[in-house]
Amino acid sequence: MTVPANEVIAKTGDDALPTNPNPHSARVVLAHGGGGQLTNDLIREIIRPRLSNGILEAFDDSAVLEVEKGRVAFSTDTYVVQPIEFPGGDIGRLAVSGTVNDLVVCGARAKYLSIGLILEEGLDLDVLRRVIDSIAEAAREAEVTVVTGDTKVVARGQADGIYINSAGVGVIEPGVELGMERIEAGDCILLSGTIADHGMAVMLQREDGFGIESELQSDAAPLGGLIRAILERCGSDVVFMRDPTRGGLSGVVSDLAELSGLHLALDEPNIPIRPETRYAAEMLGLDPLDVANEGKVVVVIRPSEVEEALQVMREHPLGRKAEKIGEFGAKRDGLCELITEVGGRRIIQKPYGEELPRIC
Amino acid sequence: MTVPANEVIAKTGDDALPTNPNPHSARVVLAHGGGGQLTNDLIREIIRPRLSNGILEAFDDSAVLEVEKGRVAFSTDTYVVQPIEFPGGDIGRLAVSGTVNDLVVCGARAKYLSIGLILEEGLDLDVLRRVIDSIAEAAREAEVTVVTGDTKVVARGQADGIYINSAGVGVIEPGVELGMERIEAGDCILLSGTIADHGMAVMLQREDGFGIESELQSDAAPLGGLIRAILERCGSDVVFMRDPTRGGLSGVVSDLAELSGLHLALDEPNIPIRPETRYAAEMLGLDPLDVANEGKVVVVIRPSEVEEALQVMREHPLGRKAEKIGEFGAKRDGLCELITEVGGRRIIQKPYGEELPRIC
Repeated sequence: MTVPANEVIAKTGDDALPTNPNPHSARVVLAHGGGGQLTNDLIREIIRPRLSNGILEAFDDSAVLEVEKGRVAFSTDTYVVQPIEFPGGDIGRLAVSGTVNDLVVCGARAKYLSIGLILEEGLDLDVLRRVIDSIAEAAREAEVTVVTGDTKVVARGQADGIYINSAGVGVIEPGVELGMERIEAGDCILLSGTIADHGMAVMLQREDGFGIESELQSDAAPLGGLIRAILERCGSDVVFMRDPTRGGLSGVVSDLAELSGLHLALDEPNIPIRPETRYAAEMLGLDPLDVANEGKVVVVIRPSEVEEALQVMREHPLGRKAEKIGEFGAKRDGLCELITEVGGRRIIQKPYGEELPRIC
Repeated sequence: MTVPANEVIAKTGDDALPTNPNPHSARVVLAHGGGGQLTNDLIREIIRPRLSNGILEAFDDSAVLEVEKGRVAFSTDTYVVQPIEFPGGDIGRLAVSGTVNDLVVCGARAKYLSIGLILEEGLDLDVLRRVIDSIAEAAREAEVTVVTGDTKVVARGQADGIYINSAGVGVIEPGVELGMERIEAGDCILLSGTIADHGMAVMLQREDGFGIESELQSDAAPLGGLIRAILERCGSDVVFMRDPTRGGLSGVVSDLAELSGLHLALDEPNIPIRPETRYAAEMLGLDPLDVANEGKVVVVIRPSEVEEALQVMREHPLGRKAEKIGEFGAKRDGLCELITEVGGRRIIQKPYGEELPRIC
């Protein structure tokens, strides 16, 4: 039997054109990152319809934004979380929440985001669709607009599914003055809710639960609404804010003590933590204070405004379990001390290295 | 012979503490990305001294910038070029130049950059030092300030040495109005210099030169100075600008024709190209029109200002070989046609996929 010439040509053609795949292929191919027609297709078919807005539509090299005279906050973060999807969120929700939170803890109103994608060849396009949907949903929640982006594709084994960088621009309202240098003895520390939920939820998901049955969910959420409510009610009595992400609560409180030069005393029984989170951390030999959060804020505030701030926070869905967890003393030793339920004391140190790799 | 107890302990200790290595280790370890003490060390010892400036020193979650009322340009790009270092530059120079160029082609004065690093475990810290030095040098050249950053570390085999995202903020001077919608029949296209140098230099370096001896160097450079000079001299007669990066000159000119809806005719003999670049491209079966540039700009300008603009460009070190390469006709077919030396004609199409993977 002879093979018709056109069949031979077709087969040769398929083999010879690894950079020319079916554009409706269900997986990411290297050619999606080439800056040519297939990159356009990916952007037009998957990314733009999900993030649609006037500025992104312009499709220029940069987004052009109108700003008022004043102070602008600018921040960046890269997300490499593994797995890409986990209980309570995914890398897309994380990329929006994390960068928005870096802006809002500086007292800014988050306005614009950029999204830079690194996709691994072979990534399921359905995963990409879900992640972009999730970016869109979190952006709506945070009232930010994705105005510019970039997509790169690397070969199998040169990434791990998808990495996302998001950079953000926010506007700081006149009158907002936050800074560690404003911290004084007597200032109090509030925490907006339970610790370690994000880190433990990702960790349990990754390692097949370590045999622990759990309802743990990541707390990944944009904090703009909660923080605006605090600033509106407590004004300049709010001294400083930070979100305890990588490095956990330990990282933030040890920084606060060290950089203010004051002694900071934390009451362990007041630090909110879910029993299941504590249990999971104990099973894995981790200190929940060291574990990442993605929807919590640490607020340093003048003592007169503590009750007011707690009330505002508890009225907001993201601050229901807010507590006062400690205060700054007059001693100038730059240390953060944890006082346990039975009156024991230990110095909190910044975690040394990587407690939980690729948690965010 | 019995082994002294302290030796056994020392050995056990070394093996048991993979996340607690010597902070002066010559390679990146996972713990460098944990957000703890070792992340601080990396930032304090390697990154901050090289990029030192008042805003970065503040070390908050966001940089706080003062802006005037007006238009701000915002752009992002991720760089995954392989190899990390190549003739004429490295991934650091590329990350600064590329994002600065995306801002300046929109008529902005580039002001602020963020740098987001993904480091692969095992990366030589000396390579990281050189890349950060290179970021600092290119930033000085471009007169931009790196104001905020982020560092993540992933395990071996989950990246390829180093990936960099840079996002940038620039200020658009009042009166600058650039846009594809302004393009009219009769407008001319200028190109600031030789094409395909970046892509071919990286490609030759990567593949051991394919046996081609070559002096080819990447053209990676920030274009702010050149573009400001053109805008100052030619004002509102400058209609539109774009840098021909991924997708090469073909990508830009096919976009210009398609999106303006006009016919664009290019004179092939006028398109500057080095003989060695042409030779290298021929050897690899590539069309130099499709190959990435990182220090060139395509300028659409009213015909009356062509001579003036060419003179300004040729007076600048980055525009010495500037040429008029084509013009828009009245026919509304949205096609870009290349007219060859011997009068042949072909339609230029946007490259389909990945001509040269990981070129930027």
